[in-house]
Amino acid sequence: MTEPARLRGPVLVVGAGLLGTSVALACRKAGLEVFLSDTSTEHLRTASGLGAGAAYAGQEVQLVVVAVPPDHLGSLIVEQLRKSDAVVTDVGSIKSQPLAEVVAGAPHDVRRYVGSHPMAGSERSGPLAASATLFEGRPWAIAVHEETDADAVSLVRELVEACGGVPLELTPEEHDQAVARTSHLPHLMASIVAGRLADAPEGHLAMSGQGVRDVTRIAASDPRLWQQIIAANSPAVLALLDEVTARIGAFRDAISSGERSELGTLLSEGVAGTRAIPGKHGGPPRPMSSVFVAVPDHPGELARLFADAGDIGVNIEDIRIDHDPGRPVGLVELVVDVARADHLADALAHRKWDVHR
Amino acid sequence: MTEPARLRGPVLVVGAGLLGTSVALACRKAGLEVFLSDTSTEHLRTASGLGAGAAYAGQEVQLVVVAVPPDHLGSLIVEQLRKSDAVVTDVGSIKSQPLAEVVAGAPHDVRRYVGSHPMAGSERSGPLAASATLFEGRPWAIAVHEETDADAVSLVRELVEACGGVPLELTPEEHDQAVARTSHLPHLMASIVAGRLADAPEGHLAMSGQGVRDVTRIAASDPRLWQQIIAANSPAVLALLDEVTARIGAFRDAISSGERSELGTLLSEGVAGTRAIPGKHGGPPRPMSSVFVAVPDHPGELARLFADAGDIGVNIEDIRIDHDPGRPVGLVELVVDVARADHLADALAHRKWDVHR
Repeated sequence: MTEPARLRGPVLVVGAGLLGTSVALACRKAGLEVFLSDTSTEHLRTASGLGAGAAYAGQEVQLVVVAVPPDHLGSLIVEQLRKSDAVVTDVGSIKSQPLAEVVAGAPHDVRRYVGSHPMAGSERSGPLAASATLFEGRPWAIAVHEETDADAVSLVRELVEACGGVPLELTPEEHDQAVARTSHLPHLMASIVAGRLADAPEGHLAMSGQGVRDVTRIAASDPRLWQQIIAANSPAVLALLDEVTARIGAFRDAISSGERSELGTLLSEGVAGTRAIPGKHGGPPRPMSSVFVAVPDHPGELARLFADAGDIGVNIEDIRIDHDPGRPVGLVELVVDVARADHLADALAHRKWDVHR
Repeated sequence: MTEPARLRGPVLVVGAGLLGTSVALACRKAGLEVFLSDTSTEHLRTASGLGAGAAYAGQEVQLVVVAVPPDHLGSLIVEQLRKSDAVVTDVGSIKSQPLAEVVAGAPHDVRRYVGSHPMAGSERSGPLAASATLFEGRPWAIAVHEETDADAVSLVRELVEACGGVPLELTPEEHDQAVARTSHLPHLMASIVAGRLADAPEGHLAMSGQGVRDVTRIAASDPRLWQQIIAANSPAVLALLDEVTARIGAFRDAISSGERSELGTLLSEGVAGTRAIPGKHGGPPRPMSSVFVAVPDHPGELARLFADAGDIGVNIEDIRIDHDPGRPVGLVELVVDVARADHLADALAHRKWDVHR
């Protein structure tokens, strides 16, 4: 066996938006030389100014990372494959469509192309929102296809690791089906639930609690980007929309006929689904539990709470704060391993915190 | 005008579960005498042991709070109205159906009944999960109906205020339509999206990011309780399911015909919906922005971050932590007023935190 190819750089990042600039910053942090290109000279200047790399001027590179919106992915990947012998990857949200464009547009170079997709982003966009730590601990798919060169896969895997991501190898088809289920369908459903809020009679939305805020949060993202993502993954998304329509029909029947046990069975499918989601960063699912703490609205109280939680030695997986500036007390939800929740609650109560479960 | 009735107690809480015991604890904290009743002697003993009040033994009370699952609400409210001249309220998730049962079962006493509904709860249940601060700052609907006695409304409003809730007056019909939209429909959609995860091919769920976790979180709640809630609000829920089915059809058409602008328009409805949700605790919506901070996994680092944020003087509205015990760095998302985000990010960066937006 020959030694796998090593990522030594330089790396060319095409597209200095949020993702491209973040990849560039992470590569620089890992000690790699980085060049940047972008049709926007303003983005290019901003990203360079942040230390993400120098403007590209035709230098030879080892790896090209295409970080542009879905509509432009295929043509820019083909252009890069034709320009040089470098390995080319991308960080787009869909993987089958760009591969098909590469097969059509650069059939002899397709072995040097391996698409990828980091599960990280932000509601903001542009290079100013970028960070070298954006991908830290996040799943990052590597879409290995039949004709992929093993060295190309090694380089992309090293890129993912240099950025702190957790590499996951999938075929492009598997990837697109996986994100249809874990990202695109949830996005559409969040959007549809949120859309019903816009129609609400006056005053009804005052009853909004944390649940509806969580369900609809991702619906706030840029519709121009999302219309490209959904359109580029239409077969997988349409198949899931059909499943959802059938399920809504089943709920409708159970509700209108008063079949309680059928309604309970349908709701239990959802419970099973929430348990199927792996632990963060791909670990096995771990049951979590919440401990609620009432925190007085004085400076330093949050810091004191976290200092106490740190002393108690329970790892906090998630935090939510429900705080109204006009009220004397805020409610902090600490999400911890279910096996540690009682200990945390008792130990915090012992330290005179007002705790409930 | 006569003086409105004042809540002096005693208060009888029927049902010593999570909500009932929390109401009792809050009333005790406000200095009111509280009695408890429950068919479960274990719940009763536990709640009493927590200081929520003494077991009820026929004493005269001013206000009865019925805190039982939806299926038993109507009959227990009627029973309480017949037993004494006290004002009766409840804390159930739906308001029209119990009122109809009261009108049928205790027509001469319906003026002494005013239903209510605090928008607070937990994935846990039972008296051990209770807290005097559960309702702190939460919307709490008071379902005023045509025959309601003004004094009864005053007493229930005082109960809400004694518990720290934010009273919202709605008719029972308005309430049920409002929660169908802000709670029951989001719950069903979360359940349907989660149900699709249970069907996922092996390995696909490793691509799950924060979005799908947020969308599906509430689907983990108890199906036995939720089948009662949904069944008791079926007309409003069915009307919204029809709207959702029509919208899915519109998305289907736009996706399969490749009508990008139509797809964008549909997604924009969702964006508008997320903006329609009021600020927490019923205030006007305020645009929020996130600041991300990479926090080293050393004890005390979170405490130091919150101490710094406190010094900087920016009010933190929400926090999320994305932390993997196996990695050296966790990512903390601080959600703040959009007008303060730049200041917070700059000031944290100045204090050597690794910040991005």
